[in-house]
Amino acid sequence: MGTPTRRDLLTMIGATAGSAAMYQAMTALGHAAPSTFSGPVSLEGDPGGASVLVLGAGVAGMTAALELRDAGYNVKILEYREKAGGRCWTLRGGDRYEELGGAVQNVGFAEGNYINPGPWRLPHDHHAVLHYCKRFGVQLEPFIEKNHNAYLHNTEAFGGKPQRYREVASDYRGHISELLAKSLKAGNLNDQVTAEDREVLLESLRNVGALNENYEYRSSLKTSRFRGYDRDPGAGVDGAPLPSTPLDPSQILNSNLWRRFAITEEMEFQTPMFQPVGGMDMIAQAFAREVGDLITYNARVTSLLQEDGQVRVVYEDTAAGNAQRTETADYCVCTIPFSILGQIEHNLSADLSKAIDNMYYLGSAKWGLEFKRRFWEQDEDIYGGISYTNLPIELISYPSTGFFSDGPAVVLGGYSWSPEETYEFNAMSPKERVRWAVEFGSQIHPQYKDEYKSGVSVVWHKVPWVLGCFGIWRDKDTDYQKAIKLDNRVICAGEHLSYRGAWLEGGILSGLNAIQTLHERVIQA
Amino acid sequence: MGTPTRRDLLTMIGATAGSAAMYQAMTALGHAAPSTFSGPVSLEGDPGGASVLVLGAGVAGMTAALELRDAGYNVKILEYREKAGGRCWTLRGGDRYEELGGAVQNVGFAEGNYINPGPWRLPHDHHAVLHYCKRFGVQLEPFIEKNHNAYLHNTEAFGGKPQRYREVASDYRGHISELLAKSLKAGNLNDQVTAEDREVLLESLRNVGALNENYEYRSSLKTSRFRGYDRDPGAGVDGAPLPSTPLDPSQILNSNLWRRFAITEEMEFQTPMFQPVGGMDMIAQAFAREVGDLITYNARVTSLLQEDGQVRVVYEDTAAGNAQRTETADYCVCTIPFSILGQIEHNLSADLSKAIDNMYYLGSAKWGLEFKRRFWEQDEDIYGGISYTNLPIELISYPSTGFFSDGPAVVLGGYSWSPEETYEFNAMSPKERVRWAVEFGSQIHPQYKDEYKSGVSVVWHKVPWVLGCFGIWRDKDTDYQKAIKLDNRVICAGEHLSYRGAWLEGGILSGLNAIQTLHERVIQA
Repeated sequence: MGTPTRRDLLTMIGATAGSAAMYQAMTALGHAAPSTFSGPVSLEGDPGGASVLVLGAGVAGMTAALELRDAGYNVKILEYREKAGGRCWTLRGGDRYEELGGAVQNVGFAEGNYINPGPWRLPHDHHAVLHYCKRFGVQLEPFIEKNHNAYLHNTEAFGGKPQRYREVASDYRGHISELLAKSLKAGNLNDQVTAEDREVLLESLRNVGALNENYEYRSSLKTSRFRGYDRDPGAGVDGAPLPSTPLDPSQILNSNLWRRFAITEEMEFQTPMFQPVGGMDMIAQAFAREVGDLITYNARVTSLLQEDGQVRVVYEDTAAGNAQRTETADYCVCTIPFSILGQIEHNLSADLSKAIDNMYYLGSAKWGLEFKRRFWEQDEDIYGGISYTNLPIELISYPSTGFFSDGPAVVLGGYSWSPEETYEFNAMSPKERVRWAVEFGSQIHPQYKDEYKSGVSVVWHKVPWVLGCFGIWRDKDTDYQKAIKLDNRVICAGEHLSYRGAWLEGGILSGLNAIQTLHERVIQA
Repeated sequence: MGTPTRRDLLTMIGATAGSAAMYQAMTALGHAAPSTFSGPVSLEGDPGGASVLVLGAGVAGMTAALELRDAGYNVKILEYREKAGGRCWTLRGGDRYEELGGAVQNVGFAEGNYINPGPWRLPHDHHAVLHYCKRFGVQLEPFIEKNHNAYLHNTEAFGGKPQRYREVASDYRGHISELLAKSLKAGNLNDQVTAEDREVLLESLRNVGALNENYEYRSSLKTSRFRGYDRDPGAGVDGAPLPSTPLDPSQILNSNLWRRFAITEEMEFQTPMFQPVGGMDMIAQAFAREVGDLITYNARVTSLLQEDGQVRVVYEDTAAGNAQRTETADYCVCTIPFSILGQIEHNLSADLSKAIDNMYYLGSAKWGLEFKRRFWEQDEDIYGGISYTNLPIELISYPSTGFFSDGPAVVLGGYSWSPEETYEFNAMSPKERVRWAVEFGSQIHPQYKDEYKSGVSVVWHKVPWVLGCFGIWRDKDTDYQKAIKLDNRVICAGEHLSYRGAWLEGGILSGLNAIQTLHERVIQA
């Protein structure tokens, strides 16, 4: 054998040195697809007129189509629905939604009000989606994820009375700071902490935990600065603030309300987050403005076969009496969720077929509830953010836009994801689901019943084009690498084929990686 | 003596039962001014054509004037400056600012860019200022106070390298959770925590602190979800995330960076906060639209005397060669800062004079630095929020508006308030101050020097109309109640006469309380 090709070299490195060396070598050779987004994709080299059929006009499919066309490919997209976006979806007044089983909801929200049944917030470090938002001029505004003044609620704790996040969090922090300080002062941790560090640690606990000079967390103006006052600081003869009384530490512990503390400390939910002005599907609409001319809508794919050096897709035109039509192409980027793809005729490889069949889709239930006025702002000083509850609605998220305005507004009235909850809600009619959400929510906001105006509910297991909320791997370590490979002439993409599952970012990154893999094959062919 | 009057009754209760009973009795009689804002003020009863001269067209003075006029008073306002707002002040491109000593700055910011030298953010529970914003149609947008991705910086720690907030905070929390868990498991706190609570507490520590099964905080994908990854989750063959390594706990402790954790947990800085769209003085402009017709600008008050049953104020018209003019009125609401009032001729009571003289004003230095582009967003994923440093600039606050936009933007390049720092900056020329802020800031953002465009700096001890940032009481317990009293025909108001010192809210609440006290006297007269 003569001079080794680049591929031979990589194979040798891979075989001898393991994947870390492999990755470094590939990076050095300009070869590895970046796992995360580091800038606009660049597909160098002439594809020679190759054609690609993209299945699905969600963000993964539209990203792939957009970049492939820019690189010189002949691209077409088939989309099941009558519009683009997939789960990047917004429901507004006047919209009609028919779920599996035929139940129809006509959304009655006032002008400008909306709910995002799918993704509803953008982390600050989801670079790919932020890149396309900027490129397409999608206007973003802060999404308020954390709100110290929202509630934590457990029907079994504090007499079922919702507690303000700031009170529970401040008191928990104070309590554990006091306990650790006690332990340090008793010398219990002298084998863990040096004498010098011990003094600094004690000082930090007093500072962070709002402890007094004796390292205790007590009712005081100091602790009230964090948890809130019984009488706020003001002016006039009674301007001086009055301290509040901390909650009982044992009650806090046994309330389980602390289970919600960690969420906003996770990267993906850290402050600040963003949302598109006007609804999440502003992103879908922006993509569709770019690639809308490539999309055939109302196309229900029934067969995906590779034969005779091409990909052949059969679909039904649901807008034309399910007339059967066929598209062929050199390659296919398939973003059809595995929940659907597994039910379509295909001749994909055994490995990929197994990955498809192994994946199941999480269900979730979401509600948009419109109220006559923003009572959460006007009565309770809650501007955006999320209240959590142990009730089956799990949470109430207040709108992060239109603050201080009069007139009706829409809250996310629930976001349930546990199997027990979603199975129950799946079994209900939309009307019944909304009734329950109002019933549950009124335990947190008594104003619910008087102020309720209209509602809509989406259970994802009944969303016809995906039959679930997002894909779950039974065995990602085994199946993932097999599922993302180019399978002869077909490559799959979507949030389910990423490590950012359930996020728009995962869909876009997966779409970009799929076309880079595909393009490499085309250029080398 | 006959039937006791209401005032007699209150005096008796006060003398015998102390202030708590006094407050309750006053409230029951509908008498006490609310210490915090609970709705629009209502001044019942006819003032019979009484005239009030308001000194100062800041928010305290304009609030007082607005509500007094609505209640039927004849109101005039004298204002030192050529415009309204006082410390509620925004500097924009084209503005000229001359500080004490004569140094002039011509602000060179691009269209739309601004800096607020005074108040710059509104807490969610400052009801009075939010009320007037809503009433006047001042548009508010979220102010990002907390940003997990901003920096904590100490020149003496971590080799002077700025650390991401999320890393320091996650690691500190993990470390103290692990220590407390160790102590609990060793039984050291059995006298403090019951056996049942101990188990729940351990579980909560694992949850909140991101501890592993052995209650340890270690490099892992779990801890990386909070502190960040070495390689982010993505897609493609290298889509799997790689964990990061926690910082050394001893280094964190000795870095003192934990001193910044508590800030955003305090009520006044909790998420969400707000700011007026376009600059803080949108509030001032809104007030001025309401009461502008009452204001005489360029009026430097030189004398405030009460005599012959009236208030007599002498001022110089600085727009007319300091021509001396006089205004008289039945009453006066004086919002002139005590730092200035103490230098003006007056015949106020001994008690009030003492309070005036006892108050001193904190200095502070603030910078607005304009850069050619938002490198903090584009290079560092920092969208709003605040980085803290031990350098004399104390902090850098990134703009909470115009996210993702191209073109120049303005950061708050520093906010120093310690005496040592402000005295040094006071002594410098504006140009020199700006040069230092750029120098210091470049230790956190190396892009500073290349991207710097223009800057402005305000040191509050040199602001002619207030000579300080906000008032500090030497002995609030003694002086406050004396200072807020109606002093014959004069009553003082402003942020300095509240328990919300340094906030707009304090100024408005104080203004409202002053006119309620005044009105009661007028009605009873």
